[in-house]
Amino acid sequence: MDKNEKLPARTVERLSKYRRLLYKYRDLEEAHIFSHKLADLFNITPEQVRRDLMLIGLTGNHRKGYNIRALIELIGNTIDREGSQHVALVGIGNLGKAVLGFIRKAETRMNVVAAFDTDNNKVNTTIAGVPCYPAHQMDQIIREKTIHIAILTVPPESAVQTAILLQRAGIKGILNFTSVHLDVTSDIYLKNYDIITSLEEIGFFI
Amino acid sequence: MDKNEKLPARTVERLSKYRRLLYKYRDLEEAHIFSHKLADLFNITPEQVRRDLMLIGLTGNHRKGYNIRALIELIGNTIDREGSQHVALVGIGNLGKAVLGFIRKAETRMNVVAAFDTDNNKVNTTIAGVPCYPAHQMDQIIREKTIHIAILTVPPESAVQTAILLQRAGIKGILNFTSVHLDVTSDIYLKNYDIITSLEEIGFFI
Repeated sequence: MDKNEKLPARTVERLSKYRRLLYKYRDLEEAHIFSHKLADLFNITPEQVRRDLMLIGLTGNHRKGYNIRALIELIGNTIDREGSQHVALVGIGNLGKAVLGFIRKAETRMNVVAAFDTDNNKVNTTIAGVPCYPAHQMDQIIREKTIHIAILTVPPESAVQTAILLQRAGIKGILNFTSVHLDVTSDIYLKNYDIITSLEEIGFFI
Repeated sequence: MDKNEKLPARTVERLSKYRRLLYKYRDLEEAHIFSHKLADLFNITPEQVRRDLMLIGLTGNHRKGYNIRALIELIGNTIDREGSQHVALVGIGNLGKAVLGFIRKAETRMNVVAAFDTDNNKVNTTIAGVPCYPAHQMDQIIREKTIHIAILTVPPESAVQTAILLQRAGIKGILNFTSVHLDVTSDIYLKNYDIITSLEEIGFFI
């Protein structure tokens, strides 16, 4: 599928989730799954699942559903880029370490190749398998290692300034954990994990 | 506004974000803000902002926009419950500690009143101002302290079992950081922070 063809963000998100759930079945032979079963697992409608999979050119078999291996492969062909994608982690506090641990354990082509911090006890060491560089080398290392994605886990007071530096260094996507509003240019794909907002949303709906 | 009236989840999320951004202006007298300015700050359309605020019964002034203090107050009346809401943090690893730090610094009625862990070095201590209890007391403490919201920061392998225990104890909302798919009943408001999915989404769109 042409990578440039526009898929909705929600579809990409769901495709990524479907795949990770399906990974656990892929050692089975000839395994199939119905759209309504996938739908149940994610609390969405079967129509939604079928629509998502139709968008990547897959239709299920009425008697058996979708072939799981074919599904995993097609999702990969659609949402993965060639090879692994280089990611930088900026800020190695408790949160940064936890995020590194998550990524390390997960099966993904996302590859954290550099971490940055200002703490002299951390720089020039290796943390969870990732080399840690001083913050002032950020621009240089990001360019050298062709990193396009950054995970922002710095303290809130450093968030805005760090985001500016990341943009200048050529970063194209940011996963922002700081709960700070970042005013990035439109060519940056920004995703915010805003813990307080999420808690308030939960508080409202329960 | 009647709390039971249905607001869309996305609207509640945006209202919470508007408010946190506006907090920094509230010491000003007579300060107003236009919908297009708020829209710019969140990369959404002015129509979206106006629609959200119309849903909570507020219309702006054509010459000056929205009164900021009135806006903050009305959002609070709409999305906050009376008093503070009790929250439990389950799992005090790096991630749990980071989340506690966030909440402590933020201005919110979300109040973490108990943390749980299985590590004997952590239980019966106070971490970031929050008393830490052994996991086996979870049911009892959650009932005693009338906690309805849980933040799940346990290791992935404990996620499913812990979520079952939380539901049994009467938890109504879960913020799930484990990247593990949880199959909760429909009366639980579940919000997932799925780091790998988010990274793959960023990787696709940049």
